[in-house]
Amino acid sequence: MRLDVWFSPMGIGPADVQGRTIFVIDVLRATTTMCAALHHGARAVIPVASTEEALRLAQTIGSADVLLAGEKNCVRIPGFALGNSPLEMTEQAVKGKTIVVTTTNGTKALLAAQGATIVYIAAAANLTAAGERAREALAQRRDVVILCAGRETAFGLDDAYCAGRLAAAALGGAKPRKGLNDAALASLDLVRRYRDNWERPLSYSRAGRELTRLGFGGDVRDAARLDAYPVLPHFHERRVTVAPQSQVHPAPPQPQPQPS
Amino acid sequence: MRLDVWFSPMGIGPADVQGRTIFVIDVLRATTTMCAALHHGARAVIPVASTEEALRLAQTIGSADVLLAGEKNCVRIPGFALGNSPLEMTEQAVKGKTIVVTTTNGTKALLAAQGATIVYIAAAANLTAAGERAREALAQRRDVVILCAGRETAFGLDDAYCAGRLAAAALGGAKPRKGLNDAALASLDLVRRYRDNWERPLSYSRAGRELTRLGFGGDVRDAARLDAYPVLPHFHERRVTVAPQSQVHPAPPQPQPQPS
Repeated sequence: MRLDVWFSPMGIGPADVQGRTIFVIDVLRATTTMCAALHHGARAVIPVASTEEALRLAQTIGSADVLLAGEKNCVRIPGFALGNSPLEMTEQAVKGKTIVVTTTNGTKALLAAQGATIVYIAAAANLTAAGERAREALAQRRDVVILCAGRETAFGLDDAYCAGRLAAAALGGAKPRKGLNDAALASLDLVRRYRDNWERPLSYSRAGRELTRLGFGGDVRDAARLDAYPVLPHFHERRVTVAPQSQVHPAPPQPQPQPS
Repeated sequence: MRLDVWFSPMGIGPADVQGRTIFVIDVLRATTTMCAALHHGARAVIPVASTEEALRLAQTIGSADVLLAGEKNCVRIPGFALGNSPLEMTEQAVKGKTIVVTTTNGTKALLAAQGATIVYIAAAANLTAAGERAREALAQRRDVVILCAGRETAFGLDDAYCAGRLAAAALGGAKPRKGLNDAALASLDLVRRYRDNWERPLSYSRAGRELTRLGFGGDVRDAARLDAYPVLPHFHERRVTVAPQSQVHPAPPQPQPQPS
């Protein structure tokens, strides 16, 4: 069993992710927003790194069912239908739509994870679903990585605490054990420190303080709601969609012998 | 006041360090070893990244007073006089000598810090001296960075705990406050978790476990001894030497007005 936490996608290459099951976390706000959108009936979320790429991609898809969403410095991009707030992803707004969303840190983390066996999306909003899947992956002796988007490639307290919660759910408790890297140990220490109080680490984090200062305190509180959007998205062919049920509760048809 | 902790030197550019007072930590074992060597009378320690560079530099200096020290995968390099163990840096071995030491992570961190106003070396071995200097720097309204060497550019529990201890010493307590980045908050959380028990985070860390497995458990215990080598080294012109006394207890001759 091996469970690693990475506090940022910086320096990660294809060899690092190959063969692994990866859970990407950008709790404030990209992965929370993705869970909200898919839970409320969006068909897919396509994360891109820039406004220009979003506009180009929307033109290429060319459908009336495409919505542009995103922020620059936390504020909605002019002309876009939606910002990057989970509270905007109502059923009325997103049902049946494909959402092209700009998110700098979230997109970097997702692209860094490409090449993994499978890439899931995690946040407080879907922690139980993600935790179950991570626990199953460990039970199947898969290498699991929890990848934090971080903050401009640096450590983010919000994501690190969420990583610790996911690790604890995967392990069935916050007690450290063998097979964890140092970042996993430290993220479990954060769980011991903040216990089940999501709002504290999220509002203490620089991302949380900045959002609150800009009037998005509601988003921080929403992102702290455990299992608010209980869906398990995966990232496949550059799209985030609801993972097939067979992945959520897999009973592998042909259990593979494990290398000793 | 601004106090940042960086968990690895990855992605740090000259603009990030300019104008800052930086404390570099590689507690297992590079910065501990540097403190031991200078405390026991070495004239200077010159950190380099490779065996080849060490040999070339020793030839260039060409003095009988040069010692080669270093490890590859924790083990002494064949033909070198010393390994990378603080326990080897006895007065008998190092007094009056210039030591060229290979250390992968420690060197990367020191080179990343080049261009800062001043770069100090910190470890458990000199925590009180480093903490006093950091506190003075904050009192003078300087921006302080605690830079962890980390582990192959990733998070290391040993360095992160040491960073928390240094931050707590600089701030006069582990209570978080404004002006700290998320990594500083998390490192203070580690101090609350492990309190003053240096041996636990050091022996839990991957670096500590690996050293113990290879028979260097004595080094891990030595690196955990608070103020074992109470000297304050700085890194200047590619050499680590004892910082001038006036820096250790500075009374700035011309206090500069701070930009508002």
